[in-house]
Formats: sequence, structure tokens, C-alpha cells
Amino acid sequence: MHENRPETPLLDRVAGPSDLRQLPDAKLAALAGELRSEVISAVSETGGHLGSSLGVVELSVAIHAVFNTPMDKLVWDVGHQCYPHKILTGRRDRIRSLRQKDGLSGFTKRSESAHDPFGAAHSSTSISAALGFAVARDMGQPTGDAIAVIGDGAISAGMAYEAMNNAGHEGRRLFVILNDNEMSIAPPVGAMSSYLSRMYASDPLARVRSMAEGMESAMPAPMRAGARRARQMVTGLTGSGTLFEELGFDYVGPIDGHDMDQLLPVLRAARARATGPVLIHCCTVKGKGYAPAETSADKYHGVSRFDVDTGTQAKSGGGPPSYTGVFGQALADAAARDPAIVAVTAAMPGGTGVSRMAERFPARVFDVGIAEQHGVTFAAGMAASGLKPFCAIYSTFLQRAYDQVVHDVALQGLPVRFAIDRAGLVGADGATHAGAFDVGYLSSLPGFTVMAAADEAELVHMVATAAAHDSGPIAFRYPRGAGTGVALPETGEVLEIGRGRVLQEGADVAILSFGAHLGACLGAADALAEAGIGATVADARFAKPLDGDLVEQLARDHRVLVTVEQGAEGGFGSVVMHELARRGCFDRGLAIRNICLPDRFIDQASPAEMYADAGMTAEDIAATARDALAGTGTVVSLSSAR
Amino acid sequence: MHENRPETPLLDRVAGPSDLRQLPDAKLAALAGELRSEVISAVSETGGHLGSSLGVVELSVAIHAVFNTPMDKLVWDVGHQCYPHKILTGRRDRIRSLRQKDGLSGFTKRSESAHDPFGAAHSSTSISAALGFAVARDMGQPTGDAIAVIGDGAISAGMAYEAMNNAGHEGRRLFVILNDNEMSIAPPVGAMSSYLSRMYASDPLARVRSMAEGMESAMPAPMRAGARRARQMVTGLTGSGTLFEELGFDYVGPIDGHDMDQLLPVLRAARARATGPVLIHCCTVKGKGYAPAETSADKYHGVSRFDVDTGTQAKSGGGPPSYTGVFGQALADAAARDPAIVAVTAAMPGGTGVSRMAERFPARVFDVGIAEQHGVTFAAGMAASGLKPFCAIYSTFLQRAYDQVVHDVALQGLPVRFAIDRAGLVGADGATHAGAFDVGYLSSLPGFTVMAAADEAELVHMVATAAAHDSGPIAFRYPRGAGTGVALPETGEVLEIGRGRVLQEGADVAILSFGAHLGACLGAADALAEAGIGATVADARFAKPLDGDLVEQLARDHRVLVTVEQGAEGGFGSVVMHELARRGCFDRGLAIRNICLPDRFIDQASPAEMYADAGMTAEDIAATARDALAGTGTVVSLSSAR
Repeated sequence: MHENRPETPLLDRVAGPSDLRQLPDAKLAALAGELRSEVISAVSETGGHLGSSLGVVELSVAIHAVFNTPMDKLVWDVGHQCYPHKILTGRRDRIRSLRQKDGLSGFTKRSESAHDPFGAAHSSTSISAALGFAVARDMGQPTGDAIAVIGDGAISAGMAYEAMNNAGHEGRRLFVILNDNEMSIAPPVGAMSSYLSRMYASDPLARVRSMAEGMESAMPAPMRAGARRARQMVTGLTGSGTLFEELGFDYVGPIDGHDMDQLLPVLRAARARATGPVLIHCCTVKGKGYAPAETSADKYHGVSRFDVDTGTQAKSGGGPPSYTGVFGQALADAAARDPAIVAVTAAMPGGTGVSRMAERFPARVFDVGIAEQHGVTFAAGMAASGLKPFCAIYSTFLQRAYDQVVHDVALQGLPVRFAIDRAGLVGADGATHAGAFDVGYLSSLPGFTVMAAADEAELVHMVATAAAHDSGPIAFRYPRGAGTGVALPETGEVLEIGRGRVLQEGADVAILSFGAHLGACLGAADALAEAGIGATVADARFAKPLDGDLVEQLARDHRVLVTVEQGAEGGFGSVVMHELARRGCFDRGLAIRNICLPDRFIDQASPAEMYADAGMTAEDIAATARDALAGTGTVVSLSSAR
Repeated sequence: MHENRPETPLLDRVAGPSDLRQLPDAKLAALAGELRSEVISAVSETGGHLGSSLGVVELSVAIHAVFNTPMDKLVWDVGHQCYPHKILTGRRDRIRSLRQKDGLSGFTKRSESAHDPFGAAHSSTSISAALGFAVARDMGQPTGDAIAVIGDGAISAGMAYEAMNNAGHEGRRLFVILNDNEMSIAPPVGAMSSYLSRMYASDPLARVRSMAEGMESAMPAPMRAGARRARQMVTGLTGSGTLFEELGFDYVGPIDGHDMDQLLPVLRAARARATGPVLIHCCTVKGKGYAPAETSADKYHGVSRFDVDTGTQAKSGGGPPSYTGVFGQALADAAARDPAIVAVTAAMPGGTGVSRMAERFPARVFDVGIAEQHGVTFAAGMAASGLKPFCAIYSTFLQRAYDQVVHDVALQGLPVRFAIDRAGLVGADGATHAGAFDVGYLSSLPGFTVMAAADEAELVHMVATAAAHDSGPIAFRYPRGAGTGVALPETGEVLEIGRGRVLQEGADVAILSFGAHLGACLGAADALAEAGIGATVADARFAKPLDGDLVEQLARDHRVLVTVEQGAEGGFGSVVMHELARRGCFDRGLAIRNICLPDRFIDQASPAEMYADAGMTAEDIAATARDALAGTGTVVSLSSAR
């Protein structure tokens, strides 16, 4: 395997940023080239966020060359573009473990390195965090400068706007590097770089800006138009004042984020002279320097393992359809039947599957951008007007709009349908993307209906149920990845609200599942049967309204009741226990046990490995039931018991 | 009483907006005058948000005169400025029940009137909701135009930015009225109104804008500077292009929001000609037209009952200090002892009490504006740098930053201290401001410490405990209003993390309280004692980490265990039951009952009335314990049992 790795003589000498700073400027472009090859090589083995990492190779080198990291705090927004940064900061030896069990995280992570002063994975947090570091420096904490690197998508979110607004008001020295890769037209290299390379020796920062502006006018017309368009696209402004300047930032740019001869002098000048917040606008190309990435539509945003020479990605085998795909199809079908159905996504039409509806009904699917808060309330407004909005947001990102769910949807009892993908543990994206808390934070809201799909056929029914449920908010959750392979119904059936189902009956213990862990529950029942213990297995379908009669019956007819869910404590198990307490079912004894995520964050691995780590395998469930049964003193009469 | 009410001959003829539309324009200013008197008179009896309501009297009249409400959907941001609107829309007969039990809500509310198409109480939601109505109209729903009225503070929040960004992109006909009352300088009336009053007959909307701009130049110099400054303050721009225009809005203004001769023609022109989103910039004066309000520092933002002639507000009697005041003092004292302590507030320095620290250490208190998302991550950044941030945000508003709490604070284990005021039911502000969900949504997060103060002395200890706790995030919640009158310690004592306390012991039932309902629990124990039932009363202090040994001991030593908390199901009671399940304490029988908020939203009243509504009085607790005990078949041997 190693013989296929790129030659990297310069990179081999860089154990950390201090080595990099020993290199002459003239070598840094070559170092970046080697770094790019190393990133491509590593991700070809691991899969991951290739396109965004390739877009910041030069930027990563330049920042570490100019700033005194890790004393200076470098905060990568989202963090999925951090692979070059990780290679440069002492983690090259583990870079081929990216996103694997026990490997490097695919995002920045404080516990991994002092070079990750503030971890991320969700978008648009970097400027807020960097401002925190800047304040701490000004208050005497042992920390240097603060640098946030944020993409053009991430900076459009409300949170980033709030942070810039506040940073501009504070007026503290702070660096925000806008990594702008929506533009295919990078500013021309030659003329601008020659201007910029002369400016950092003596000119005040204001001159950097004005020289950059002068550069625009000096360009040949088509280039000039490109650079102007670039600036206007991001700043939203046609004049010389930019939004950033109005918010109190010095604005520098746009510069070519792949040209070391522009990056180094501009960063050095900014570092040497800034007294307040500075925004440095870098134009980069997603997937830069790797032809298959640059030429693909998604710029290899997220890839599986691939062949470096051809760019061909490893394909997963056929297998059952993904939950996402099943949802997307069911939604599109429902939309075809009911013209009042609309859909909202926050910058993830593909990830959530609403793109399938968008293909057929483009005018009824709304991509609001990275703006979950607005998206939910916008959906609430549509619901108040009589439309039937499906708000498709991952569990972990719906946290971004919790107040809107409470205040705009639940309090008003508006029938917004929440399609909650990526519920439970999600695999390679790790703890930051776990959909752990939604059942708890939604079930506590009066009037909410909360469902979870046990398999992809159930998901089809739940889409139909949600479409039909017009008396209040309703949510249904389902996991990342492939379904179970169960046959899919032609059309979904509208489920009776608040009714669960019993899958098999047994005398000794009851296992009450909520959601996609049903397979493990059935496996546990099999294991128990082998030990001569009869298990009833039920699927609650609804956490709210809970099927209280079913729960009471399970409690009455069994000595042991085990609840199982793919979520944190405080979710389905809590709802069940509250109901049992209300009905007095604990009064005379019930060995209840809750199988849910443990009280710690689970690092990335495959979902199965993560659930094993969490103690949630079929055998774990069986063991819990067995131990509880033993504790009750129940004698299981059989020969095969071990 | 009635003899003191103002003469309102015109208003008396307005049962609803359609009556108002019958009046000639020349009468509308007079109607507004009567409406203002009515608002002042009503709020003098009820208390409430006077200043903001007085600022929109003319605007309320003008909007209802021009637009076809309620077919056209008028959405007031926050909604606390809605008193004139309520009077005009058929609710005058109940206006003197504002914010009282069974009375009108102090905010807009869908269930109250068709004229409140989208309720509010939290800030910055109106543009999102209005866009939802606009889409629904375009899709054929029976709804007219959508109009959002939003203040200059509310429009600065990230969510409003997200909404404008999306609305501009959608390009649909939509009206956003910026109610800009930070400016004391209103544009001059005479010259501008004469220009504007002539423009609506025939000129296209673009002319409105250019005429308004022309007006600026035509003004006398000092006025012109004022108007320019006004425009720049809000738009952040010095040129003719405004942020709103760059986001895709047509921009009209600024106009004098108290001058009917400007409001009517501008609104009519906008209504007649808009094809896309329009922002109408109105300058208003908070407290307008009532001298005591206009001249007070807070513009009578929120007032108690007052004397109309003098403006003198009813004072609450001496009594115990408020929890907010006790927190503010304890924080300021802690900050004096530890220079690493900093505080963050989201536009509520007074409401949260951090103003007391700000008086002594202004450079260490950060008001980030209406920006909870940024505020929490900013605090996380400071914590990552070694500072000790206290993030003081009401329970209901912390919902705005839930993902930041999860992703930036909890996942990274950063020691941000959350001071959660207004926990539980809050009284006159009603259901929208209830702090119902924080215990659940925080306790599910790994590594979080969650406390609740039983009284104001406990609060002082918890501030000290939070200041000392530097190994992870910690939160402490406390209610709105006055403390219990308990003696306050000179300095707070650092509590042992995860240890509760037993206040009194009894043989029959255990009452385990979390937070400020401890008084009711002690009252319940007294009531039970009268019935010959001995009750242990304990204060858990911590929901997380829970004092599991205490809980197990209470379960083991009593047949009945009642948990009590000022919050929704899924909070403290859930944590207790999970622990009991884990320890097998239910296996042989335990009559557990959970006293918490019921599964419905509780309308405004006094907090005591609201808790009575919720079934959470001392007598309710006692009855629950008594019934549970009876159910277990335990014989209580005593003579006095009724």
C-alpha cells in the first residue's frame, strides 16, 4: 500500500507548525502541493470531506506560517475542512484513521490537539468562539490572536451575523477569514499578487484595502468584472463600502486563496497592523487541484474511498434502500396526492431527500439555506395559512430551532410535520451529529405527536400519518443509513395516533421498543428464548401520545419491562415511566429497565460499533432483561437455561 | 372608576377595522389620539408594556386603515406593542383585563382573535411567519397580504436576518414595517409629508423611494443630518443602497411613524404597487404622547399600575428581595473575588440582574444584544480560554441557543455557568415565557451539572458553587419574583456536587423537591401531618448529577415517593425514575408520583394562580401523597385522620 503514497520530501520534515515556519516562503507553495497530495491519498483510503479540505490547502499552510499557532487560536468553522490542518499539526501519522473507530475525528476536536482550540461540526459558530478568545486575551489570559475561518455558506447563517454584529461593536483585534468557494472566478493572479506582495512591508492596513481596490480597476475588463462580481456576491454590496465594514470590520480582498504570494503578505500585513476586527476575503475552489473533484458537480464534498488515479468512488452494494431515500419518495408521493403539502429544508435538499419532491414540484420545496430558526417559523407561518409543511431537518440540527419549535409551533398548536433524519447514532460523523435528544425535547411539549419508525415500511406509514394529521405538530424520527429490507407498501397507511403494536408475545419479560432498534429487540427476544425466557416484543410507534393501555398491559402481564430507544435518557423511557407512575403500575413492583444511550458522548465508528460501545446490542438487551428477571426471584423453569 | 376614563367619541364607533376604514383620513389622527388615551387609561389599571404600545398607535390605525385585515395577515413582532391593535380589533371591552387571569394576553395570540394570525412573545419571528403567509397566498390559500411589524432591536437578531435573506431571495410581495424607535429625532413633518402626500396617486413605488430621498436633501441641514443618521443607524449604510435593498427588498423611508399624513400615503402606495418584498422604515418614539413615559429613561417599557395624571407607578411593598436581585448581587460579589469571572446577557442586563456586576466591572459584562445563539458560543470561547463566564439567560430564551449549549458547551465540556432566571411559571407574561423545559433539555446532556435553588439563600450558594465548578458546564435555575425572605448568607458556600439535603423526616411518605417549590412541599408535609401521615421532605438541589443514594434511601424507607418540580414532565422526575430503575428500586414496589407541570400550556395569571391551575398547590401534593399511600394499602393509624 505504501508504495502508492505520494513523494512528500518537504512535508516529511514538518512535524508541526514550527517546522513549517522555518521554511522559506518560496518553499511553501511546494509544501502545499505535497500536502494536497497527502490529503488526496489519505482520503482515498478513508473517505471523508475531500472537496472542502482541498479548497483550504494553501490557506492552512499560510495561516500556520504567519500566525503563532497554537498560542494563536485558529478556529475552523464546521471543521470538516480540517484535514490539511490536522496533517500540519502533528496528526499526520493518524490521518489515515480519519472518521474510523478509535481514529481521528473528521472535525476539529479539542480533546485531540492543542491545535484545535475550539471544535466544531455544526456550522457558523467560529466567529463567536474566536471573539471569546479575543476577549480572554484582552483580559490577560495566556492566549494570542484569534482567527476564524468560515465559508460563504456558513457566514450567511443568522448566528454568524449576530457574531459579526457583536465583534464589530466590541472592536477588538480579531481575524475572520472568509473562505469563499462559491465563486468559480478567482481573481487574477499576476497583477494583484505583485501589488500585494509589495504592500506588507510598510503600508498601513488601510492601504492594503485600497490597493486591493486599486487592483480591481487595474485589471483587464473581464477579470475586473469577475472580481467585482465576487465581491458583490459575498458582500451584497455594489459600492465600496461592504457589509463587513458597516459592521465595524476592516475588509481586505478578495484575494486568491490558492496563491501563496497573495496569502502570505496579506495575512502578515493584517497580523502586523490590525487593531480591530478584520475580514480577509479569500476566493478558493472546492476540490482544488484534484481534477475529478473540481469537475464533479458536488466537488467531492463527501466521498467514500476512491481510486486516486480515476477518482472512482467505492460503491456500496445494492442492499435495502436508505431511510432518507424512502422518506424522499414517500414525501414526493404524498405531495402528488395533496397539493397543500410543501417542504422546507435548511441547505440539505439531498441529505434530507426532499430533492426527490423538488424534482417533481420545485415550487413547493423551499431551501432556506443554513437557517433552521427561520425555516421552522416559516413552516409555522405556512401551517397557519392552511398549507401542510414538512420540515425536514436532521435531529442534531433541529436543536438549532428549538425555541421556534416551542414558541412558534407547539404553543400555537400548528400542524408542522417534522421529518427527523439521522436520529440516533450516525457513524463516521461522530458525537457532534448524533441525534440523541429529540425525543426528550419534543415529548415534553404539550400537544406534540412524536413517532419513530421501526423500519422503512413504518416510515412510509408515518409520512402518510403526518400528512393526514392536521390538528397539531407531529414529528417522526428515523436513522441514518440503509433500511432493514422489509417490503415497502404501495401507499402508506394512516396510523392510529397513540397506538402501538405487539409483534410477539411471551410470558416472562416485555421489551418495548421505540424506533429503529426493534431489530435488536427481536434479536434479544430470540436470545432470551434460547435461555427459556419468553419475551413479548412491542413497538410503541408513538412516544407521544403514548399508548398507555399497551404499556399498562405489558407492565401487568410481565415481571420485567425493558424500554429500548436510540436516544438519550430523558426520552421514550421517561415518557413510559411517567405514565406508569401516573397509573400506579410501580406500586406493587415492576422491574423496569431502560436501554438508551449512556450518559456520555460516543465517538465515531460504524453505527453498529457505536451502539455496541453504548451497551445497546441485542445481547445487552437480553442480559438486562435476564438480570432484571433474576432479581425479581422469578424461577424460569426449563432445561436449557445456562 | 369610569368617570376617569377619557372621552373617545370616534373610538366608540369603531368595533373593528371595517368601521375604521369608513372614517375619512382627516379623522384618523384624531382617532389615534383617542386610542392613545384609551391605552394609557387601560394600562394605568392593568400595568403592562406601555411604552412600545404608545409608539405604534398611529401605525396601528394606519395599517388597519390601509390593509384589509384580517384577510391580510398582520404579524406584530414580539407582540407586546399590540394593545392599540387589540382595542381596534374588537377586544376593547376586555382591554382592562390585560395580563390578568382569564383576561387578554399581553401578546398577540391566535386563539384570541382572527386578527392575531400569528402570535408572538419572543423576538424576531415575524418576518419568517409573514413569508409563510405570503407563500400560502401565492399557492392559493385564502389569505391576503402579509405584513410584519418589527422593531429595530428585534430586526438585529440573526433569525430576522435569515428571514430577510430568504424573503429577498423568494422575491414575493411582502411588507416589513421597521418600527424604529431608538431614534429620538423623527424626520421633519411639514416638508416631507407634503411630498409624500402627493406621491401615492400615480407614481410607481420606485418614485416613493426616490422622493423620500429627495426629501432628505431638501431638508434644513440639522434635520437632514438627523434623517441621514437615522437611515444610517438602521441600515448600517452611508450610501444610497441599503442593506435591505441588497437583500432584495424595496426600501422606503425613513418616515415619521406618528404622522398620519406620511403613514397613509406610503402604506397605500406600497400596497398598490409592490410586486416583491418592501421594507417601510418608520421612525417612532417609545412612550409617544404620554409625557411621563417620554421623559423616563426606560420609556415606561413595562409598568405596574400608575396614576394617569402624574405617571406615578404603584410600588410593590418592601418584602423579600427578588431572586434576580439576589443573583445580581451574588454575581457581583463573586466577580469582585475572582477576576476571571465574566458575564454575558442577551439584551437583558436589568432583567437578569447582571447590571449590578456591570456597575462595578463594566468591562467584564457583555451585552450581545438579542443574540442568544452567539452569546452562548461566545461564552464557550471565553471558557475555552480560561475565563469563567456566567451566561445569564431566562429559561424560555435559552431555548434559542439549545444547539449552542449542546454542541459548543456540553460536547466540549466547557465550564460555562448558566444562570437561568424565570424558571417555572412566570405570571403575567403567560405561557410564552414559562420556563418549563430547561431541566429536561439540560439534564439529558452528558457532563452537565443542573441545580435549582429552593430559596434565595440557596441561590447565593449556587452562584458560589458555579463559580468554583471549573470542570464542566453547570446551570442553576430560579424563579421569577420575590424570594422567601430567608436570611441571606454573607458569602455563598460551595455545595458538594450531587448532594441533596433532608429537611425533615417522617415515616410514611417522602417528598423530594427540586427547586423553588420546596415551600409547597413543606406545606404539604404539614397537611399530611394533620392527617397523621409522616412525611420526609428533601431538597435534591441537583437534578444532575442526582444524589442517587439519597433517592434510593428515600425509596427504601418509604412506601410513597413524590417528586416535585416547577417544570414540565421529562425533567427532574424523569431523572429520578431513571436512577430508581437502574438501581432496581421499582422491582418490589414503590408508589412513585411526579408533581410537575401538566401536559398543556398554562395561561397567564399570578404565579400562585398558575400553579393552582397546574394542580401543584401544597394541598395537591398532599392529596397525591395521601392517595398513593392509600393505594398501597398502608394503614395509617391515627385518630385525627379525616
